[in-house]
Amino acid sequence: MRKVIYPGSFDPVTFGHIDVAKRAVSIFGNLTLAIVLNPEKRGLFTLQERVDMLKQATKGIKGISIDTFDGLLVNFVRQNKANVIVRGLRAISDFEYEFQMALTNRKLDERIETVFLMSSEQYSYLSSRAIKEIATLGGDVARFVPPCVAALLRRKLSAANRS
Amino acid sequence: MRKVIYPGSFDPVTFGHIDVAKRAVSIFGNLTLAIVLNPEKRGLFTLQERVDMLKQATKGIKGISIDTFDGLLVNFVRQNKANVIVRGLRAISDFEYEFQMALTNRKLDERIETVFLMSSEQYSYLSSRAIKEIATLGGDVARFVPPCVAALLRRKLSAANRS
Amino acid sequence: MRKVIYPGSFDPVTFGHIDVAKRAVSIFGNLTLAIVLNPEKRGLFTLQERVDMLKQATKGIKGISIDTFDGLLVNFVRQNKANVIVRGLRAISDFEYEFQMALTNRKLDERIETVFLMSSEQYSYLSSRAIKEIATLGGDVARFVPPCVAALLRRKLSAANRS
Amino acid sequence: MRKVIYPGSFDPVTFGHIDVAKRAVSIFGNLTLAIVLNPEKRGLFTLQERVDMLKQATKGIKGISIDTFDGLLVNFVRQNKANVIVRGLRAISDFEYEFQMALTNRKLDERIETVFLMSSEQYSYLSSRAIKEIATLGGDVARFVPPCVAALLRRKLSAANRS
Amino acid sequence: MRKVIYPGSFDPVTFGHIDVAKRAVSIFGNLTLAIVLNPEKRGLFTLQERVDMLKQATKGIKGISIDTFDGLLVNFVRQNKANVIVRGLRAISDFEYEFQMALTNRKLDERIETVFLMSSEQYSYLSSRAIKEIATLGGDVARFVPPCVAALLRRKLSAANRS
Amino acid sequence: MRKVIYPGSFDPVTFGHIDVAKRAVSIFGNLTLAIVLNPEKRGLFTLQERVDMLKQATKGIKGISIDTFDGLLVNFVRQNKANVIVRGLRAISDFEYEFQMALTNRKLDERIETVFLMSSEQYSYLSSRAIKEIATLGGDVARFVPPCVAALLRRKLSAANRS
Repeated sequence: MRKVIYPGSFDPVTFGHIDVAKRAVSIFGNLTLAIVLNPEKRGLFTLQERVDMLKQATKGIKGISIDTFDGLLVNFVRQNKANVIVRGLRAISDFEYEFQMALTNRKLDERIETVFLMSSEQYSYLSSRAIKEIATLGGDVARFVPPCVAALLRRKLSAANRS
Repeated sequence: MRKVIYPGSFDPVTFGHIDVAKRAVSIFGNLTLAIVLNPEKRGLFTLQERVDMLKQATKGIKGISIDTFDGLLVNFVRQNKANVIVRGLRAISDFEYEFQMALTNRKLDERIETVFLMSSEQYSYLSSRAIKEIATLGGDVARFVPPCVAALLRRKLSAANRS
Repeated sequence: MRKVIYPGSFDPVTFGHIDVAKRAVSIFGNLTLAIVLNPEKRGLFTLQERVDMLKQATKGIKGISIDTFDGLLVNFVRQNKANVIVRGLRAISDFEYEFQMALTNRKLDERIETVFLMSSEQYSYLSSRAIKEIATLGGDVARFVPPCVAALLRRKLSAANRS
Repeated sequence: MRKVIYPGSFDPVTFGHIDVAKRAVSIFGNLTLAIVLNPEKRGLFTLQERVDMLKQATKGIKGISIDTFDGLLVNFVRQNKANVIVRGLRAISDFEYEFQMALTNRKLDERIETVFLMSSEQYSYLSSRAIKEIATLGGDVARFVPPCVAALLRRKLSAANRS
Repeated sequence: MRKVIYPGSFDPVTFGHIDVAKRAVSIFGNLTLAIVLNPEKRGLFTLQERVDMLKQATKGIKGISIDTFDGLLVNFVRQNKANVIVRGLRAISDFEYEFQMALTNRKLDERIETVFLMSSEQYSYLSSRAIKEIATLGGDVARFVPPCVAALLRRKLSAANRS
Repeated sequence: MRKVIYPGSFDPVTFGHIDVAKRAVSIFGNLTLAIVLNPEKRGLFTLQERVDMLKQATKGIKGISIDTFDGLLVNFVRQNKANVIVRGLRAISDFEYEFQMALTNRKLDERIETVFLMSSEQYSYLSSRAIKEIATLGGDVARFVPPCVAALLRRKLSAANRS
């Protein structure tokens, strides 16, 4: 069986990510959600918080595991003896950016393929950034993220306001 | 009569914004230009300067009022018992970003509609950011913004250079 | 009250069209669905069939009327003393074509504005052409068009096959 | 093992199609190239010619089979107990059309997923239509299609000119 | 001096074409407007009418000549010992189609470069097809094409109506 | 002979830039690569390092010179009595951004034209930013930049890690 990697920041995970993950695991039988540790861009959530969040949000979906990596994605893919990268595409398109990244990764290692899956059109407007913005401004994010993430967002932001 | 909101940073207001505002007020009979106060992104102009600037630039257009808000746009729209948001679309397209924001706002409150108006094609290349860049580099912005804004830009930037 | 025109081929009307019509009428208080008679492009449905279809499909939505026109849209808009054209935008974008048409119409009559409304993201993939294709190939179109349209499509296409 | 379908007109097959087919079979282990028979659009090549062409062009690639279908793609996919459709994406983008088709197919059968693979950037400009145009105008298509296809194109077009 | 070719259908020539031609000749010192004779797509105007139209519309612009060709553009470019093709880009974008054609032409002859010029933003919405449509429906095209073309369009279409 | 300017950050120069430069100089006979000094965005390489890098990378291409500028591009173009700006377009499109810049520059000085050249499709995915990211994460950039740039990148980044 091919090992398949779904890389991302997941800061935080959204219903859009979960939708893509379910579709990928139903096609490939397995999926590793790989949280990228970007030393230059501090996220809202710590790496450990994101791992916990993803575990809770994907609990009950067979074949999914969670991992983290820093450095080049293609190196992580090789170390895991995987050769398929999964990315979600939204109707509101991240197409050009995704295409550029996928072509660059292919140049770095020609054995690695990127496959694109469509997220459901009801999640086509979702982005982690928009969700953080809405939560920061006091909006309700219940229809964008799982309950555990909504709760974590509230706790995180009220802690930030206290400090 | 429906209350209609045209939100934006207006930092500074451009001929493109004014063009959209005129079209919107001619359709809806009223328009509130709502300056968003973004606590995380300090603008070039203070909120008060932007209010003054908008007042001067829209003086003589009937049915326009100026307001400011922080927090979620949909909350501001609701507090004003408005239910239409106006956004300008330029041929050089902010279409995808605008669409994503409008879909997100609709999810937050389904009674609120966003309507898109086309700015004149002669303003299709205008952005507040480009204008600030040009002014900073010593370029002439007279054909991009009203005279009062051009004067304010010059004063602002020479003050910045002195400090 | 401003008269507002929503022009289209409606060959046939889809849930996407109805979604846009509902949003428009809730903003403007009235809406004329104006079926264009294109002498060069024979539709699947006759003009009369489309009028009947639209009437049934919009029955119960207050403020909607149905009309037909040939010739230039801007002439029809002027004859009706309307000055707002409504067009739906889908996430999967007809943006550039719509923009070009709206700019051309504005050149033909500067008093006429086009406003763009977003259709619901669940209809972002719908097009009359795709629906006709699916129906022709024997697919079920029940989730794309109202029941009366689905029935008409079946009848139309079985008649076509008999001939 | 999942059965995977790569539908298309293949009129004629290009190096771009073959590139996508190789990538797909290396990921999924099998691939059926399914030539669509469109009763309304007569191709340059007959269905039988296209089958022969695809067989020759994919000879030596393990796991590939050739088939034809008419009617709805989703019906063909179901009859083959497949549930993955493969489509190639080019940097010069067919993205929006592909997305619309894939969303429509998902509506028709929610168990069927479409996965998108990137063709090599060196084939990003290739289309069957352009190749036919070039060949018709007497241009050399050797760098766009396999030798057997180039020969067939020459024969086909000189026959057309004689008639 | 490099010979520079500006190919097109020019059916009819618009202010947008003339705008691009003026810019090109001011950069390169010479320009050949090359009307493509497409045997499969009958235009509204005959080749001779288009030649006459272009001559009148570009009278007084130094360095411009008019020519016609059939077959492959790259062959025409080579026969003229030219190696630069000029194409206009509009904000409302024909970008992807133009890019594909230019890449295909480069593959056919690597010595030939395509350079893209921006038409004025006031012509960004203009297309020959839209102009023919407007004229057919009785609209006034005076702001889209030179007077001689507007007159020819009227004559052509009234002749068509009589027949 | 017209003086032609190719402005950019070149931080660092890539094979994509060099490809565009070669095409431009073959069309226009001369080309000045003009490195912009952006006081607000500190680059990875100093201005002097970029000058040296460009000299080495373009050594042996006749007609190329290297220069630097700060302030408005149009002022630099005027001071050099040039009136053509060259920009590369990639299939993965920076088209809209480039168009906006070019329209803005045209507004600032109507005598200045921007011409767009296509980079080779094999460099369509290349960006200076991606290359810096890959090098930072320890990836091999040999197929993206000239050897001298790859060596400089390694030295630069290992110096950064030591500090």
